Amino acid sequence: MIYLDNAATSFPKPECVCREMDRCMREYCANPGRSGHPLSLKAGAAVMASREAICSLFNICDPMRLVFTKNATEALNIAIKGTAFSGCHVITTSMEHNSVMRPLRALERDIGIEVTVVRGNELGEIDPDDIRKEIKKNTVLIISTLSSNVNGIVMPIKELGYIASQSDLAFLVDASQGAGSMAIDVEELNISMMAFPGHKGLLGPQGTGCLYVSNGIPIKTLMEGGTGSNSDSHYQPDFLPDMLESGTLNTPGIVGLGTGASYIATAGAGKIAAQKHRLVKILIEGFSQIPGVNLYSVSDINRNSGIVAINLRDLDSGELSYILDKEYGIYTRAGFHCSPGAHKTLGTEKTGVVRFSPSLFNKVSEMIYTLDALEKISWKTI
Amino acid sequence: MIYLDNAATSFPKPECVCREMDRCMREYCANPGRSGHPLSLKAGAAVMASREAICSLFNICDPMRLVFTKNATEALNIAIKGTAFSGCHVITTSMEHNSVMRPLRALERDIGIEVTVVRGNELGEIDPDDIRKEIKKNTVLIISTLSSNVNGIVMPIKELGYIASQSDLAFLVDASQGAGSMAIDVEELNISMMAFPGHKGLLGPQGTGCLYVSNGIPIKTLMEGGTGSNSDSHYQPDFLPDMLESGTLNTPGIVGLGTGASYIATAGAGKIAAQKHRLVKILIEGFSQIPGVNLYSVSDINRNSGIVAINLRDLDSGELSYILDKEYGIYTRAGFHCSPGAHKTLGTEKTGVVRFSPSLFNKVSEMIYTLDALEKISWKTI
Repeated sequence: MIYLDNAATSFPKPECVCREMDRCMREYCANPGRSGHPLSLKAGAAVMASREAICSLFNICDPMRLVFTKNATEALNIAIKGTAFSGCHVITTSMEHNSVMRPLRALERDIGIEVTVVRGNELGEIDPDDIRKEIKKNTVLIISTLSSNVNGIVMPIKELGYIASQSDLAFLVDASQGAGSMAIDVEELNISMMAFPGHKGLLGPQGTGCLYVSNGIPIKTLMEGGTGSNSDSHYQPDFLPDMLESGTLNTPGIVGLGTGASYIATAGAGKIAAQKHRLVKILIEGFSQIPGVNLYSVSDINRNSGIVAINLRDLDSGELSYILDKEYGIYTRAGFHCSPGAHKTLGTEKTGVVRFSPSLFNKVSEMIYTLDALEKISWKTI
Repeated sequence: MIYLDNAATSFPKPECVCREMDRCMREYCANPGRSGHPLSLKAGAAVMASREAICSLFNICDPMRLVFTKNATEALNIAIKGTAFSGCHVITTSMEHNSVMRPLRALERDIGIEVTVVRGNELGEIDPDDIRKEIKKNTVLIISTLSSNVNGIVMPIKELGYIASQSDLAFLVDASQGAGSMAIDVEELNISMMAFPGHKGLLGPQGTGCLYVSNGIPIKTLMEGGTGSNSDSHYQPDFLPDMLESGTLNTPGIVGLGTGASYIATAGAGKIAAQKHRLVKILIEGFSQIPGVNLYSVSDINRNSGIVAINLRDLDSGELSYILDKEYGIYTRAGFHCSPGAHKTLGTEKTGVVRFSPSLFNKVSEMIYTLDALEKISWKTI
């Protein structure tokens, strides 16, 4: 098996992640922040340590402003529905995932927000000026993915952050693809809110995600419930993280995520990016030599978070992915990747693409084998 | 350590739960329902097997009507916000957790729903007729906890389900306390929606919960996002479970929960209830002999889901819980348990209570030791 579907869920996880989750389940998985006994306190301390480990990756100074969610989708829904309101205007890009577009379209339909989608070029790259031009009196929020989940193209986050801050707009970044390997400093990039999953580049388990909310962003709750704080009130507390963390937290998952974050801090996000890029570059340069391959990703490390999207002639992307799996044991993801706008931008809205997404644990030899497999398929399908 | 805080999170878990979660993390934790390769398919099949195992506990015929959530709180928020609307009327009880009351109060404040809270007697017991009397033209929903998380008192679910069905109202049950040991047949009880966590009586991990939605209940989404289905649409699919399951699922958690459900099916929910009740009865009968103990729970197995709530004279509940922990290694939960209405009903809104909640893994000898500890504290505090 050659697993190249890390943009969906990274696999395998570092040994330390699995081990600490199992230890948590067996030794201290009581309810964090609820009771006062040692097991509950230990669970609470472990959650706090994870909060801090994650914050330190992104220069988030106050760990209480990091909210744990079940996945990036929940984090994005909280951010979007917590800041948009009837009559407001939101600007986003054509490269967004359905976890951004579906909440926006639902709000547009249900409460009447205005949504402007700025289209990227043939690679999905956005011109920051195209975003700036769309700012209106009722604009409150700019949303951009850090990089595309279809072809890895990196967005001009620094420029967008600057534009948002100059216009006093909230700036929400969907860091689902890139968190864990790309350098992200929320202060330097003027990021108001950042959503990311735990189970992709951060090497944690599924069932985890985070939302960072900077100071001064007025945000409403999507859910209310038990928080273990202000327990005698029928109203949600108004302080973070409790305000946005209702119900029992996923302690074993969060512990795993924190362990993943610590692993990344030790290994170095830069080194991880370099290793992923090394693999991506081999794939891209190799694919570009194979007859019939249509390539939708670039090999420049600064413009690609670690994804290679291709098609082979007019072969259905699902079929190519199936052949790679059945005949060569190479695991990819075909189709539309929950991002119809991105596919329209890339011109692949009818075919989809086959997505190869290596992790730091893949080997050069696996890339060579993958190129060899694709070359064989190419010859067979002439 | 004697862990008597199972109403917060059950601990320990069956060995099989920990083992299967670890195996999932190490062997097949790819993204379920997204890609087509064997690892993703295996994860998807494991999620489906868990869905079926849980459904079979509650006589839920169609496993696609069971939605996985991060906890019971999310499930309750989806159910309440998905069915209530501006100007509608909701009836509930004074024994509800903040995970019911806070969403209701937020809707009351933000979109103008009407909320009627029917008060229980001094034990929290609700007279079904008191609910029936409150039904009005604009009533759409009746919500009741299966049993109180403060003193374990069981609600007249069958009668309430009948009343709701007779009046064509939706009936939402918060089964956070009782699912896994109490007999629940959603069909027989006329339950329209049922929310429950995975990490309590179902013996699964934190980070898991479920919402059952019966056929014919019109429900709106709380969140939208990637579902792996209808990927080319910017609108959420309208079929279950996808409609209410946005973003990557918590595969290792769900696998653990499914394993917990299978463990319960094998052991027998009735046998688990009997074992828990045996322990609860020893505690209640023992406590009632100790001078100065105020008891808020009943020992009748049909009226108590497995919780013993007490106070000792005028000792602060937090202090009693602290002494039990520090001097005797007995872990309980003191305070208000996120249920201010229940404490008002029981007359403990100023003191809180100390809550003892055994699991099937506790031993009779631990109950005897606990009684002995409390007797000693009682004599010391005369």
